[in-house]
Amino acid sequence: MPPYQHFHLIKTCDGARTGELNTLHGKVLTPVFLPVGSQATVKSLTPGEIRDTGFNMILANTYHLYLRPGIDVIEKMGGLHRFMAWDGAILTDSGGYQVFSLAPLRRLSDDGVMFRSHIDGTEHFITPELAIQYQETLGADIIMVLDECSAYGDRSEKIQAAMDRTHRWAERCLHAWKKRDQALYAIVQGGMSPPLREKSAQFLRSLDFPGYAIGGLSVGEPKEITLALVAQTASLLPADRPRYLMGVGAPDDIVQGVARGVDIFDSALPTRVARNGALFTRQGRVNIRRAAFQNLEGPVDPTCDCYTCRTFSAAYLSHLFRSEELLALRLATLHNLRFIYNLVGQMRGAILDGTFTQFRDDFLAGYRTTDEPVRLAQKQKWLKERGAQQ
Amino acid sequence: MPPYQHFHLIKTCDGARTGELNTLHGKVLTPVFLPVGSQATVKSLTPGEIRDTGFNMILANTYHLYLRPGIDVIEKMGGLHRFMAWDGAILTDSGGYQVFSLAPLRRLSDDGVMFRSHIDGTEHFITPELAIQYQETLGADIIMVLDECSAYGDRSEKIQAAMDRTHRWAERCLHAWKKRDQALYAIVQGGMSPPLREKSAQFLRSLDFPGYAIGGLSVGEPKEITLALVAQTASLLPADRPRYLMGVGAPDDIVQGVARGVDIFDSALPTRVARNGALFTRQGRVNIRRAAFQNLEGPVDPTCDCYTCRTFSAAYLSHLFRSEELLALRLATLHNLRFIYNLVGQMRGAILDGTFTQFRDDFLAGYRTTDEPVRLAQKQKWLKERGAQQ
Repeated sequence: MPPYQHFHLIKTCDGARTGELNTLHGKVLTPVFLPVGSQATVKSLTPGEIRDTGFNMILANTYHLYLRPGIDVIEKMGGLHRFMAWDGAILTDSGGYQVFSLAPLRRLSDDGVMFRSHIDGTEHFITPELAIQYQETLGADIIMVLDECSAYGDRSEKIQAAMDRTHRWAERCLHAWKKRDQALYAIVQGGMSPPLREKSAQFLRSLDFPGYAIGGLSVGEPKEITLALVAQTASLLPADRPRYLMGVGAPDDIVQGVARGVDIFDSALPTRVARNGALFTRQGRVNIRRAAFQNLEGPVDPTCDCYTCRTFSAAYLSHLFRSEELLALRLATLHNLRFIYNLVGQMRGAILDGTFTQFRDDFLAGYRTTDEPVRLAQKQKWLKERGAQQ
Repeated sequence: MPPYQHFHLIKTCDGARTGELNTLHGKVLTPVFLPVGSQATVKSLTPGEIRDTGFNMILANTYHLYLRPGIDVIEKMGGLHRFMAWDGAILTDSGGYQVFSLAPLRRLSDDGVMFRSHIDGTEHFITPELAIQYQETLGADIIMVLDECSAYGDRSEKIQAAMDRTHRWAERCLHAWKKRDQALYAIVQGGMSPPLREKSAQFLRSLDFPGYAIGGLSVGEPKEITLALVAQTASLLPADRPRYLMGVGAPDDIVQGVARGVDIFDSALPTRVARNGALFTRQGRVNIRRAAFQNLEGPVDPTCDCYTCRTFSAAYLSHLFRSEELLALRLATLHNLRFIYNLVGQMRGAILDGTFTQFRDDFLAGYRTTDEPVRLAQKQKWLKERGAQQ
């Protein structure tokens, strides 16, 4: 355990929770969403802008930083916070998910995983011990165990073997963990199988980690399955430890996750779709390239308090996107992140007020969710493109 | 003439001048460099960042804005200042240069010029009167006459005919000019011929414009020719009117221009080369992709006070460029613009102090100019690529 209480549960309401994370770089209220800065930068933004948008914790990625610029370079620069000039909290992913989704070739053994860089094809070997060592050197506030991820559709024996290996690796990570003022989180696996999920949660719970992540979801399965497994897994985790649903960041999914007892979310989705011109509103995503915006004097979302909506007309943002101007990407990113920040803050308030279920129902009734077949097709396409980056 | 004194010459020193431009959006000290925001955005930056870098005047382009989003859209949004949320001064180019350098096809007559859009191939017709009308509608503080630009290497008769047409068009622009609180500048042409330049300067001078631009230079000719023609043309212009050298923005070229009596400069070069990783220092341009920067803890330029150099190591900027991160483009742009801002400010100080020649000699002795054959090859390549955008 860290030498301080890492998580403090403040209140629950209809299964939703609000609490507070203690980190070396400040307190973080939950539920919380972490903007993704895989390569030590939240795409297109300065640290000051991330802070001004309201965030005080982000995610960075060990796999990406290990390959480029290298853990040694960041160590020489005084650690990840100083390297990227971010004085808020940082959570680093162990790199497990990226090795399985990005690396063109990998060879697994109980010892660890050999993989090839998606950048230059060079060969690398990572073990649970090295994953912890790298994250300790980076100096993140929350670090993750190395896990073996299953793909959607894997056979049952393969999923079980991956889960068992994830458990053995979790033990080794716990043993390798030296800098106890960083909080180490375990990752529950078990594919789409409720019995395996239960087994995984119980085993990892017995090891007494400061926090628990729900891994292996949002990998192409139908949303109702995701939600059922989130609810089941969260219910099996200790109430006094934070619960982190990895890679989930659509507004409606965050609301559904909070409703099922999740505390922490991260996803590149809000920033990625922003760069494609998809902007969040309480009614759903809108595409700024739509003809109606070309002449609109008001902001994209009149209810929004982000820099973009306070400063520019929808017509201007539309012009920037049509002209392929770099500023378009920044302005859309700021909008979507502010939307998520406000949404999560409103949920914290509703939990404290005891009105969460009302808030959730109102939000979901007003929010036009991306059509499920379209969403699944987009997800498959995106997973495929990631693979093709090889 | 505008209903106020547009330009006030404060002091001259060894041929260099410092003065003050009065505009509806504030006073602008000269010499001044204008960041280029052709499409109503200085690439990658917000209006606040341009202001924080020190600038209070920028350039936008009528050709680009006419084609996209359209003059009518910007009019509906309350004019160009409000459209792009910039409350400093704006100079708009008439679009003449872009018609000649970007449009894939054009047909000239005394009446005006028919051209095809480089975006969608649609046909358009612009006249001197329309060029003024568009700029009045945009609401820029300084507007330019429509001119006919010659290419480097054009035959003498062709250059003379273009100059004569430029003169006729200047008269028509003057006649069409209604909103006299915008300052209208004439453009001296005449190719590489000193006698034609003299004729052009004298003719336009007789029309009594609020300001004069030196056009048709930096189009592929050797630098010594540019400098000689700048010196000659500037000496023929009235001392009490501002002199604007269009499209010049390399640090050493700005210093040489100021030494020859130029007051206003604009160029996309500082921001364009920034996005390629070329950063200005007092010793010359450095390429951030050089191996030496990968491990450098200090900033790219330890003497620089820009946001980038105050906040990040060269190693971080190097990492962002190697990782093709969007933030790289912003940070390099901020650095180069701040470098130019500081350089121009130092020249203003030296002129006031009576030490300009010393400053110029010191700067040029320390600044490693881009090798002339390399520069000319780059320029030709760039002019060609612009042509190929068709």
